[in-house]
Amino acid sequence: MHTKSGRLIGVGTGPGDPELLTLKAVRALEEADVVAFFAKRGSNGNARGIVGPHWRETWIELPLVYPVTTEIHKDSKEYREAILGFYEESVHKIEKHLEAGRIVAVLSEGDPLFYGSYMHLHVRLAGHWPTEVIPGVTAMSGCWSQTGTPIVQGDDILTVLPGTLSEFELTRRLADTDAAVIMKVGRNLPKIRRALAATGMLERAIYVERGTMANTSSVRLADKADDEAPYFSIVLVPGWAEKP
Amino acid sequence: MHTKSGRLIGVGTGPGDPELLTLKAVRALEEADVVAFFAKRGSNGNARGIVGPHWRETWIELPLVYPVTTEIHKDSKEYREAILGFYEESVHKIEKHLEAGRIVAVLSEGDPLFYGSYMHLHVRLAGHWPTEVIPGVTAMSGCWSQTGTPIVQGDDILTVLPGTLSEFELTRRLADTDAAVIMKVGRNLPKIRRALAATGMLERAIYVERGTMANTSSVRLADKADDEAPYFSIVLVPGWAEKP
Repeated sequence: MHTKSGRLIGVGTGPGDPELLTLKAVRALEEADVVAFFAKRGSNGNARGIVGPHWRETWIELPLVYPVTTEIHKDSKEYREAILGFYEESVHKIEKHLEAGRIVAVLSEGDPLFYGSYMHLHVRLAGHWPTEVIPGVTAMSGCWSQTGTPIVQGDDILTVLPGTLSEFELTRRLADTDAAVIMKVGRNLPKIRRALAATGMLERAIYVERGTMANTSSVRLADKADDEAPYFSIVLVPGWAEKP
Repeated sequence: MHTKSGRLIGVGTGPGDPELLTLKAVRALEEADVVAFFAKRGSNGNARGIVGPHWRETWIELPLVYPVTTEIHKDSKEYREAILGFYEESVHKIEKHLEAGRIVAVLSEGDPLFYGSYMHLHVRLAGHWPTEVIPGVTAMSGCWSQTGTPIVQGDDILTVLPGTLSEFELTRRLADTDAAVIMKVGRNLPKIRRALAATGMLERAIYVERGTMANTSSVRLADKADDEAPYFSIVLVPGWAEKP
């Protein structure tokens, strides 16, 4: 008979600064038998780095390594099949540990259910195993705090937009909100700049890369001379310009 | 000569569960001389309760008590003047401590720069004193984590809406987003329900009150029989229904 039953914990690690882990996340890591995390081939991923100071020798490490997909288009059937197969395989690996009665913590940068890969495992496992999700500080909170930018107040509307939207859609939606956060900037930066200029928001937009990490940097977007931007950089458009 | 100079720290306390404080927030509280927090007359406020387990005898407590305003309309000149006067007075109290070389931590439920009262102090003080903002887990993250609700994935658009919007505006904006979080529910619930029904989103909407607190509760909004709701309850509309 089992005396211990398997349990799944989605652990939000926060945006990058290891000090932005919650007490609850630290305690979950203390009781975990297995620590799983998504990673690209040849890298351990950011989440693994963020919990570095809490790493334990006794943990079973379970890296979930994305299949190489850069040569396949994201909207293709081939990509979809590769990524679905990868999630199924990851679920299978985690279930082996759950069946053995282990506590499996899945690390998730930022907040697990806010654009996190963890949710692909969550929807497949949460119905079958005791599951807990520990929220984390999001990347966008890290960015607006680091730059001291009040983002929304009172009855402001906030819109979170992927930079992958068309220029028309970005412009239309920026024109119709008080505040915005634009994610997935990367190569979309020139388009984002034009949409912000068209809506009169460029002057107050702030560009942040690697928010709260040791090598972070930020600048008023209007003052940024080049269009170089890592994929996970963020543009903030604060809604709240006037006092009080 | 001063050997110690005043410093302001905006401390996000997270949504309610004291375990959702970050390590950074706990360390800021350890070094604080003064701990300020917004409160209503006759109550110490939620943020003060959340940090209860970390309370220190040596702290100078500085409650910032809102003027009684229930009898004045929020859009009136009278209200605006009362609240502006209150912020100026609060700034003055904090500056006295900063001038004496003290570290002043201002507690803020959730995240300080995301709909937090702290930002009214921040915009008045951050230009004059060394200031740090420690981000926190937002109430909405607490709500979707507690209910195991994946809120956004991939290229989803998230819109954060105040329930105070008109029924037309709520409906129009819900119809034009993948996912939504509706804040300030309270007496706006019947209107929110109608807007969700009109956009075909009622079936997937989730109602949460006092997210992550000891007395929290949540239910599919379609299954909620009454229209009773505290002001700070939240409605979640997840954007991400399909795998992967």
